[in-house]
Amino acid sequence: MQGINISIAQLNYHTGNFEYNVNKIVQSIQEAKLKQIDLIVFSELCVCGYPPRDFLEFTDFIDQSKHAISQIATHCEGIMAIVGGPDYNQSNTGKKLFNAAYVLKDGAVSQVVYKSLLPNYDIFEEYRYFEPNTIFETINCKGVNIALTICEDLWNLDNHALYVINPMAELIKHKPQLIINIAASPFSQSQIENRKQVMQANVRIYQIPLLYVNMTGAQTHLIFDGGSMALNSNAQIIDELNHFSEDNGFYHFTENQLQVLEKHQPYVELHKLEQVRQALVLGIQEYFHKQNFTKAIIGLSGGIDSAVVLALATQALGNKNVLALLMPSRFSSNHSVVDSLSMVSLLNVDHEIISIENAFKTIEETLVPQFNYSPFGLAEENIQSRLRGLILMAMSNKYGYILLNTSNKSELAVGYGTLYGDMCGGLSVIGDLYKTEVYDLANHLNLSYPQIPNQIIVKEPSAELRPNQKDADSLPPYEILDAILYDYIELRKSPKEIIESGKDEETVLRVLKMVNGNEWKRLQAPPILRVSTKSFGPGRRMPIVAKYLS
Amino acid sequence: MQGINISIAQLNYHTGNFEYNVNKIVQSIQEAKLKQIDLIVFSELCVCGYPPRDFLEFTDFIDQSKHAISQIATHCEGIMAIVGGPDYNQSNTGKKLFNAAYVLKDGAVSQVVYKSLLPNYDIFEEYRYFEPNTIFETINCKGVNIALTICEDLWNLDNHALYVINPMAELIKHKPQLIINIAASPFSQSQIENRKQVMQANVRIYQIPLLYVNMTGAQTHLIFDGGSMALNSNAQIIDELNHFSEDNGFYHFTENQLQVLEKHQPYVELHKLEQVRQALVLGIQEYFHKQNFTKAIIGLSGGIDSAVVLALATQALGNKNVLALLMPSRFSSNHSVVDSLSMVSLLNVDHEIISIENAFKTIEETLVPQFNYSPFGLAEENIQSRLRGLILMAMSNKYGYILLNTSNKSELAVGYGTLYGDMCGGLSVIGDLYKTEVYDLANHLNLSYPQIPNQIIVKEPSAELRPNQKDADSLPPYEILDAILYDYIELRKSPKEIIESGKDEETVLRVLKMVNGNEWKRLQAPPILRVSTKSFGPGRRMPIVAKYLS
Repeated sequence: MQGINISIAQLNYHTGNFEYNVNKIVQSIQEAKLKQIDLIVFSELCVCGYPPRDFLEFTDFIDQSKHAISQIATHCEGIMAIVGGPDYNQSNTGKKLFNAAYVLKDGAVSQVVYKSLLPNYDIFEEYRYFEPNTIFETINCKGVNIALTICEDLWNLDNHALYVINPMAELIKHKPQLIINIAASPFSQSQIENRKQVMQANVRIYQIPLLYVNMTGAQTHLIFDGGSMALNSNAQIIDELNHFSEDNGFYHFTENQLQVLEKHQPYVELHKLEQVRQALVLGIQEYFHKQNFTKAIIGLSGGIDSAVVLALATQALGNKNVLALLMPSRFSSNHSVVDSLSMVSLLNVDHEIISIENAFKTIEETLVPQFNYSPFGLAEENIQSRLRGLILMAMSNKYGYILLNTSNKSELAVGYGTLYGDMCGGLSVIGDLYKTEVYDLANHLNLSYPQIPNQIIVKEPSAELRPNQKDADSLPPYEILDAILYDYIELRKSPKEIIESGKDEETVLRVLKMVNGNEWKRLQAPPILRVSTKSFGPGRRMPIVAKYLS
Repeated sequence: MQGINISIAQLNYHTGNFEYNVNKIVQSIQEAKLKQIDLIVFSELCVCGYPPRDFLEFTDFIDQSKHAISQIATHCEGIMAIVGGPDYNQSNTGKKLFNAAYVLKDGAVSQVVYKSLLPNYDIFEEYRYFEPNTIFETINCKGVNIALTICEDLWNLDNHALYVINPMAELIKHKPQLIINIAASPFSQSQIENRKQVMQANVRIYQIPLLYVNMTGAQTHLIFDGGSMALNSNAQIIDELNHFSEDNGFYHFTENQLQVLEKHQPYVELHKLEQVRQALVLGIQEYFHKQNFTKAIIGLSGGIDSAVVLALATQALGNKNVLALLMPSRFSSNHSVVDSLSMVSLLNVDHEIISIENAFKTIEETLVPQFNYSPFGLAEENIQSRLRGLILMAMSNKYGYILLNTSNKSELAVGYGTLYGDMCGGLSVIGDLYKTEVYDLANHLNLSYPQIPNQIIVKEPSAELRPNQKDADSLPPYEILDAILYDYIELRKSPKEIIESGKDEETVLRVLKMVNGNEWKRLQAPPILRVSTKSFGPGRRMPIVAKYLS
């Protein structure tokens, strides 16, 4: 047997933009033909973009997806391609669609394989649209018998058996020589490692090589790092595509082993914080580029959160495309302005200073008949924050800037922020980083070159909405707060378990009450770039009108 | 055979409030015992409230639910009770939970029946949490063999076969004499009729009586109308509980037939618009009562939307608990204030007039260095809307009012509203009513007693954010717009189908582009009381960064 040449294409797709996706896929097919590739593999649902969400309920969207598949197929002469897309369920029972891998050859669809395990947890909701497959057949490329699986199909391992069936256990009966998995697997801080372990575990069980093809890019809150890889039958990862960028792999399969046919750009292993940095930069870029936006505006307070967002935005969009707005009030410390100015000078970004003092005074005067000289309190604090939101949005409306939100996960968790004020923005950049992680990232950013002045990193956090206000007046120290939040949000521990792990009972109960009591606020937060295993947003769905630990 | 007495309890539960739910259930059991009832039936997941959403991922929440079931069981001496709640899946594969109906008798759990069909569309996401049941057994109450099913289990009819299995087709093999269905089925404008048809269809197939037990109340955006009912084996509805309120039914089952044991309060058939009115009033009440809020604030513009919201809020909370805020600017017409004043006088609610003119001027002055006397445009329009939002929220923060949002479905659909401005609020009251439906409701409200001045109903809609502005300058006439929106949002028609049904092509394409281009805005909208089959919110999940018909 001569063996076959296989290419994997880790590409970045645009949801619903069929023309763009088809062109990109066809171009890869043409290039692969020039390289004498026999089989080229693309990622899950690539033809329509992932996740298509409720677009899948529109027959027109499915028809356009299927039309796109036919167009791609016409380019598959002398090459086989595997392309992900939705397909109709022809049965009169069950959901209307399957999540399909189309096998294209000789200018047409030659076979269609359906996904069996439909993730329906966290940000996933595939059973909302798709019927699970129950028929297990392999595909064949020039005599090579291949188990073609789709993402979750390989994730039903013994220690993680969410599903009562196991597709590979069925497929292995057909004696495949190679496993291919096409995926749409988003990034989180543990996902790169997890994914390798799951693929290796599969190879250890089934003892044949495996090709894993993921997508890259970002879709609003979801960031796809890629990390496509090739594993040999001994579970060794013989090749890994680069993270957070488009990349291709080329392999030769023969004698039941894979070998690297052509070395792509060298693989760079990324430190955890560097993964997060690249994820967030990509997340910002994608939000802007895919919507034809170029310019961002950020309210720069002199604190750590807006500083980190400004640095990331500058990396993502370029210093000429970022505007920092300083909006001091009577409660702003001198160092807020000074530190902000030193930051914009470090990054060489434009800034404007707009005092909110006159507007704040006028609103105070406007409300005298209603407020009647009552003591300064939360209402007055929030007026300042909302005035800043109003001014940022006015600049956005006037000049087309997109407002980047600077809330962090700790303050979103406990509701320490003003709805329609500092919670404004088109995209939340660091809303999935606890405050302590924001500090870590700030220090990491400064490792490559100075971006965030040290004064911003060392100062005590303050909202500066009343005289001498400090976060510590209202919240436990962030190391303690973040540890409790992680136990509750990421690990879903009970109050009892959290307290038993050594945290102060009163503090724990107070924090959990704040978390559950602020669902209403988070419901109106901007989309948050997801970098953890449990981000606020569509991966965490909580009742509002409820009474549990609150 | 002597037969048995059965009671059905249509109650209103509070999610996560176990003590409250247990007390309510136990009280009904006690009352039933006094009436010599043999079997009392409660609704789906009643012990924890429905929908519990991601609280189900917390082991502590499940443990508390199971503890509550045990507490209730201790009261089931001399009576059998069926109570809904989550249960652990003891298998080591599949989802961790089942959606269960606990059969309680002799002070303990005697049997547990699991839900087989897990709705996972629109607002439902039960496969996120639960494993589908595959074992079909009946239950027995004093010799009566009963097919106990849970909500969706009865909805897999031939014309609607979303699932490959049909629980009743399995259960009927055990020759049950009676079907019981415990449900948590939310209201929509077609649901009351649908539900009756589905229940009747089941009885026609299986030819045995049926008891249907739904819940009432509301959970944030979801309103549960109840509509529990008893059907005889000829599919005749012999009893129907009242909608939008707690109610009980008492029946005698003997000789394979049901008869009404005790006539409850007379059933009132509700006109469509009256259904909507009661649904929205209940939705407001529940949002307030379940969170211990009492007072609402509403920005009254002189237009139809805020007028209808003010009338509904007054009905829901009482005229003493509603404050109307009039916030004129230089662009407000005289009739805006006059009509608003005549409305607050009709309803006898308090009002305040706060001009935004000074604040608007000060902000214009503040932004002179940035705006540099550029032409008045969208930015200046939005500043006014956001100032009104800011003032409403300031009053909310100062005095504890909850801001009710007044956006309608048409403007939410096309993005004709200001984010952080008129889109502010804790709850959107009429966000699931198209503009034309808002007019219909206004006229319906005035049928019982004058609430909305006629001038408000007949005037041409205007945002009044620039001189002589009219909605019709930016949007197609509402009758045309709403028809297109209904085709696209409710019916998921393609542009081609909508155009072929006789609508102007350019208008259709422009409208769909506006709908798809404004997902980002709707993502930050308040929760919307759901009264249609497709409301904006968690029942409609769209990508943001996408390019489809946009």
